Amino acid sequence: MTSVDSEDTTSVLNRTAEYQPPRSIRTWLIGRPLSTADAPHQAIRKIVGLAVFSSDAMSSVAYATQEMFVVLAAAGTMAYGISIPISLAIVGLLVILTISYEQTIHAYPGGGGAYIVARDNLGELPAQTAAAALLTDYILTVAVSISSGVAQITSAFPALYPYRVEISVVLVAFVMLVNLRGVKESGAIFALPTYFFVVMMFFTVAVGLLRYLTGGLGVVVDPPPTEMLHGAQAVTVFLVLRAFSSGTTALTGVEAISNGIPAFRVPRSRNAGLTLIAMSVVLGTLLVGITFLSVQVGAVPSEEETVISQLARTIYDGRGILYLATMAATTVILIMAANTSFADFPRLSALAAKDGFLPRQLTYRGSRLVFSRGIVALALIASLLIIAFQASVTALIPLYAIGVFLSFTLSQGGMARRWWKSGHLLLDQEVVETGSRLVHDPKWRTKMVINAFGAVCTGIVMLVFATTKFRDGAWVVLILIPVLVYIFSAIHKHYRQLAASLSLDDYGVPPRTVRHRVVMPIGGVHRGSLAALSYARTLSDDVTAVYISLDPDEAARVREKWERWGEGVRLVVLDSPYRLLYEPFLQYIEELSAQRQPNETITIVVPQFVPRHSWHNLLHTQTALFLRMALLFKPGIVITDVPYQLH
Amino acid sequence: MTSVDSEDTTSVLNRTAEYQPPRSIRTWLIGRPLSTADAPHQAIRKIVGLAVFSSDAMSSVAYATQEMFVVLAAAGTMAYGISIPISLAIVGLLVILTISYEQTIHAYPGGGGAYIVARDNLGELPAQTAAAALLTDYILTVAVSISSGVAQITSAFPALYPYRVEISVVLVAFVMLVNLRGVKESGAIFALPTYFFVVMMFFTVAVGLLRYLTGGLGVVVDPPPTEMLHGAQAVTVFLVLRAFSSGTTALTGVEAISNGIPAFRVPRSRNAGLTLIAMSVVLGTLLVGITFLSVQVGAVPSEEETVISQLARTIYDGRGILYLATMAATTVILIMAANTSFADFPRLSALAAKDGFLPRQLTYRGSRLVFSRGIVALALIASLLIIAFQASVTALIPLYAIGVFLSFTLSQGGMARRWWKSGHLLLDQEVVETGSRLVHDPKWRTKMVINAFGAVCTGIVMLVFATTKFRDGAWVVLILIPVLVYIFSAIHKHYRQLAASLSLDDYGVPPRTVRHRVVMPIGGVHRGSLAALSYARTLSDDVTAVYISLDPDEAARVREKWERWGEGVRLVVLDSPYRLLYEPFLQYIEELSAQRQPNETITIVVPQFVPRHSWHNLLHTQTALFLRMALLFKPGIVITDVPYQLH
Repeated sequence: MTSVDSEDTTSVLNRTAEYQPPRSIRTWLIGRPLSTADAPHQAIRKIVGLAVFSSDAMSSVAYATQEMFVVLAAAGTMAYGISIPISLAIVGLLVILTISYEQTIHAYPGGGGAYIVARDNLGELPAQTAAAALLTDYILTVAVSISSGVAQITSAFPALYPYRVEISVVLVAFVMLVNLRGVKESGAIFALPTYFFVVMMFFTVAVGLLRYLTGGLGVVVDPPPTEMLHGAQAVTVFLVLRAFSSGTTALTGVEAISNGIPAFRVPRSRNAGLTLIAMSVVLGTLLVGITFLSVQVGAVPSEEETVISQLARTIYDGRGILYLATMAATTVILIMAANTSFADFPRLSALAAKDGFLPRQLTYRGSRLVFSRGIVALALIASLLIIAFQASVTALIPLYAIGVFLSFTLSQGGMARRWWKSGHLLLDQEVVETGSRLVHDPKWRTKMVINAFGAVCTGIVMLVFATTKFRDGAWVVLILIPVLVYIFSAIHKHYRQLAASLSLDDYGVPPRTVRHRVVMPIGGVHRGSLAALSYARTLSDDVTAVYISLDPDEAARVREKWERWGEGVRLVVLDSPYRLLYEPFLQYIEELSAQRQPNETITIVVPQFVPRHSWHNLLHTQTALFLRMALLFKPGIVITDVPYQLH
Repeated sequence: MTSVDSEDTTSVLNRTAEYQPPRSIRTWLIGRPLSTADAPHQAIRKIVGLAVFSSDAMSSVAYATQEMFVVLAAAGTMAYGISIPISLAIVGLLVILTISYEQTIHAYPGGGGAYIVARDNLGELPAQTAAAALLTDYILTVAVSISSGVAQITSAFPALYPYRVEISVVLVAFVMLVNLRGVKESGAIFALPTYFFVVMMFFTVAVGLLRYLTGGLGVVVDPPPTEMLHGAQAVTVFLVLRAFSSGTTALTGVEAISNGIPAFRVPRSRNAGLTLIAMSVVLGTLLVGITFLSVQVGAVPSEEETVISQLARTIYDGRGILYLATMAATTVILIMAANTSFADFPRLSALAAKDGFLPRQLTYRGSRLVFSRGIVALALIASLLIIAFQASVTALIPLYAIGVFLSFTLSQGGMARRWWKSGHLLLDQEVVETGSRLVHDPKWRTKMVINAFGAVCTGIVMLVFATTKFRDGAWVVLILIPVLVYIFSAIHKHYRQLAASLSLDDYGVPPRTVRHRVVMPIGGVHRGSLAALSYARTLSDDVTAVYISLDPDEAARVREKWERWGEGVRLVVLDSPYRLLYEPFLQYIEELSAQRQPNETITIVVPQFVPRHSWHNLLHTQTALFLRMALLFKPGIVITDVPYQLH
């Protein structure tokens, strides 16, 4: 497939590489490589999209109640009841968030994550902050969800408790592999279980309420040892706010749908918006229902058995088939929540990399057309977190949610600013921004107030969280996010400077080379160095061979051989009294380089052995390698390796 | 300092590099670099030489008795007495060894280690075996001696017992640094203490005997818990042989003087021989004396307190000044024994490397004119051993001594063969071998019998050791030595093949390059690639730029820019459907390479960014690096880096 077409004097040939990637252990694990032409153009079906995007949010009900209890335990058993009004307050916050995000979804049909909204409306620094907050959050989502999922498993099968860290890491690896295979498969694997979870949870809550109303709901038999985050204390406002902060982890993942709008079928924004509302209703109902029933059955927070497990075995009178089904559904949705991050983290890092805030390599798609590097990075960091925190949800929670609420605030603040911009456009004016089109909206004032109110509410929650959880671990995130922002800025600066120094604007073609000096370091006179000499002489008539002498006898032998084989080329013998090989040569090049004229090029021709087996390299000083590393930094010097293959 | 002298057409310039190595943490630790001209030409003084070469052998008395006791403990307290006849048998073996080595010293005035004797008289495989045995032995000498030295310290100061591994590793590092500074200093530091040890030990044994004869010698007060290597058993021949094997560790180090003959003043062989006899007398006397007294005072083997410590505090009635002086002398001589290995290991590895059995780098002298690489390697491996065996002498002993006795056997066997050769020479015939001159010796029959008897005796001891200690750890060494021999052979094969393929015998000058094709992969059209293009055009008129296209839009932009800036050079756009960068390019080069004529050279010109900070490399795909690695293996292809420094 070669097509030639030449314009003027430049000929351009177009070919398609026929290289077929070979089969390997890798293709067995993640599937055969996909050609770029195989990229799926159809959107994920709505039912699959809902499963992928809402599992993160809905799964939070598996730990939110328990984490409130952990805090309230400090004020004694009676304090658990406070979690009911707290959960109602959280539902209130959920309503505000849902209305706010509903507006975002319609404004950004192409996908309106916090990063895009902040970048387009608030500027570079808020965008970098949003990226830092979100990436941190995605990592923590994986760690928290998998740890909680494994906590459900070990609640049902206590014998597995000592292996919780190992099981968690294996599950992270499994989700990573599924995602490395690509979107289509991961959607199919994860669609059904979401609905299974919703049905099981509603059924459990319904049975529980029925038994409560008929007076037949007992209390937890043989409850596990209670766990407390702090020592005994009274019910203070601080304690209630701290419990509220723990409960807000239920709202993590609500923004997922706004990232994934392009995956829905048309009309995209409408379908996505309806899904958002459906998800919020399910989430709010389950949170209140589970919290209410958990208080009634007297469940206690514990690392050994989750509140969900205590609730389910009380409602179903023991560890029967319905209990096991509930636990299985909860475990699976938590693993799917981790899967959401595996969709979002690589996409966001590719987006930020494209904008020059992260290494460019993150924008490359792997053999299965997914952002493999981002997927692997996420799995590695999350696994390290799980190991460091011993798969304890309670230990991880104080680090969570700050990033989420920071991104909520930036997103809603950005939307408010957008409505303000929209209100100041002319009626028929249209502004195309990177992430969306902006037109005049007659209802801009109302919409701006709604988003601004959302921003203020989530901002306050973030401050409450940071204050009440500071000493429990939130400080880690409060240091991490600025550090990440600094790194993003440093990377961005490098790419900007690179582009400037490579730019062809004002580029004058460099002066033609008039003089070409060739310098060739040799370690001896043999077939390898003579092959290099032969090449060096094709480059220029001005060739100098340099031999570093550590031993006078050896130098005399080299000299004698050179007189016979050196083709009349000048040899410089550099005595090295300190037995150093590189430094004297580099000093010699430095001298030549200092005398260099602008139209003069110096080429260093380095003869290089290439042994048959790579372990043989251990048996040679890697002169060529070290010289190259040292010489790369000197301007006007070109380094040429003349390999000599040994057979 | 430049001198020119030209013969025929080849000019050879001689310069001395004026590079002065800078001061650094390194110069502070091991001293300023020494010029090759500073190499000491005077021999070490005899008194220093004796200290350096005999400390290994003499220090063995610090643990040999204890290791016999560990074995005999299995047969009960009464069995300890068997160690007295065993130590007399060991002295008998010492006499045989001394006479045998006395002959070696006179036959090899230039130094007659087992490796040299085996190489010159028995051939390559025995030489490699001797090298493997000796190198293993040197490493174990460091581990055993330092561990035993630290055991003396922790006997005197039991509070330090938990830190024995850390103290051992620090001591190894200390001895390493002393040796990295160089011979002269290490000799001076270690001369006095040998004599201090000899005096203290003779004094202690003398006082002990005096008190024994006058009936005033008591028994050990408050002995430490007894340690046993195996469960309780009767006194069997096997048990006695096993105790004998443990005791033969006293003979390790006897060969050291034969390695170091050139360090003695003339008449070298005579001085070295006298020193050997003196050393053997001291060693034999102390071994029998200490063993006899240890039995009398009822000392028991223990990890917590050494037999030497129990003996000394019984003889001196407690931990007074004389006790502490004895322990200090023992500790210091053991550290010096480790120092012996630091002299021998690097020298032997340099010798084996020069013969092509080990990497050539081991023959390079470091900044202080010592074989730094060998010294550092020895320190690292010995430290790992000490950590693995928790600085336990009893655990290390079963690995020791096999190597020593194997080298004894090879050395004496080699000497026997040498006398046989000597006897078959004509009266005035002289054969120059690598390590010595060989002339007819009229007494060759007697000398051959003496060395052959030595070889048989040491061979039997080696077999006894391997059999009785097999399960305790000797199997490790019995596997390790053949593995090392295999590695040496593989390295030797590589160097032989290398020499053959570089040899200029039958070398025909390669055909002059007639056609020079230049291929230049580009990642985009910018200042970096245009600088490389400008260089490429100085090499040849046949230049092709190659762009790997992952994205059609990007490819169109590159093509457009190339038409403007490409100076009419041909551009090949390679579509890569699987988004691979290297493989399609390599396939393209493969095709060109297949069509290559003998007088044609292909040069790949690779534009390479050089960022200001090395961490910036993380932000770029290292195309140039990977291409070079892949292309080095293709014959007839030269790789040129054109660096483009970013400012």
